[in-house]
Amino acid sequence: MELPSAALERAVSELARLPGIGRRSALRLALHLIQQGDDRMLQLADAIHNLAEQTTLCSQCHSLSDTPICSICADGRRDALTLCVVEDVRDVLALENTQAFRGRYHVLGGLISPMDGMGPGDLSIDHLVERVAAEGITEVLFALSTTMEGDTTAFYLYRRLQPLGVNLTVMARGLPVGDALEYADERTLSRAVEQRVPYEQTIKG
Amino acid sequence: MELPSAALERAVSELARLPGIGRRSALRLALHLIQQGDDRMLQLADAIHNLAEQTTLCSQCHSLSDTPICSICADGRRDALTLCVVEDVRDVLALENTQAFRGRYHVLGGLISPMDGMGPGDLSIDHLVERVAAEGITEVLFALSTTMEGDTTAFYLYRRLQPLGVNLTVMARGLPVGDALEYADERTLSRAVEQRVPYEQTIKG
Repeated sequence: MELPSAALERAVSELARLPGIGRRSALRLALHLIQQGDDRMLQLADAIHNLAEQTTLCSQCHSLSDTPICSICADGRRDALTLCVVEDVRDVLALENTQAFRGRYHVLGGLISPMDGMGPGDLSIDHLVERVAAEGITEVLFALSTTMEGDTTAFYLYRRLQPLGVNLTVMARGLPVGDALEYADERTLSRAVEQRVPYEQTIKG
Repeated sequence: MELPSAALERAVSELARLPGIGRRSALRLALHLIQQGDDRMLQLADAIHNLAEQTTLCSQCHSLSDTPICSICADGRRDALTLCVVEDVRDVLALENTQAFRGRYHVLGGLISPMDGMGPGDLSIDHLVERVAAEGITEVLFALSTTMEGDTTAFYLYRRLQPLGVNLTVMARGLPVGDALEYADERTLSRAVEQRVPYEQTIKG
């Protein structure tokens, strides 16, 4: 479909490079922006420009930040000896939302995935090992996806960190809270049986 | 969910104002942009900035254009006496794609919809009436959605244009090409029966 404007064509091409947005959706977004008026477009353009200029990665945990050290790493009230290892910033946000973890994070920037050409060298793993040794970390919690890539990455981290004598833990696996038992998949069910816990433990605190 | 960066927060808010994009999708898009690097972000920002600065509406047909008169209106080879009335630019693109219409367009910029507060005065209807009178238009084809709003708009246009003695036509309604009869809705089916055409007419040319 030939567009009647070179500027529109360019905006559509750029928008269509976003994940999950095809050319038709991109056109719909661009026409919506035009309908909203110039101010709206300039605000969006400026916000994205600003995103490129302002954001950086925290030099300690590799999470996203506006400052060289992110607000979580800079927060002295958090447990400095417990590190939670996650794939990316979204996982930090999801965990922070629960307020269940009060330590600090280490963002890997991906998972080991030979299929996608992601090896350990592409992730912030060396820096994690350095941090654990240098900061006297006592516990590293692997909070990775329960996928092949997540499991592979956890096992690789285990082999790198185990010699340091640090306590290595992993997120509990089992039935998601609020789900009907009958809809849980076979592997989740069998793991929930194998790793069953005393009932009393679940009604305390 | 509190984001770790004010620049990210702003980009997410702006992206979430696009149609069909919620806050979670907006965050995914913003993090994707960050992962793609600064160049990618600046390109997108610049393309949207450019969209605001460069595009305008054609002074004749109100379609989108980089120039005061769009390429369709400026094309002397097109039939200047037939006007196709459409809701917005996407309809122009869809029709142009078929190459079935060789006249010119008039983009209303919406449809009459009291529910959405859209009255005739919000659309380029007065200008359409002026054009039909001033340019000696012989046919106006209503190519509007087959919805209540589309039908209301067509009827309003009919009452405004009919006194000018111009030939008013409407897109054929019936079975979509390539669809199984059994899946057509009742109203489409009954209209297709009522407005049945001689078979020979469909096998010519």
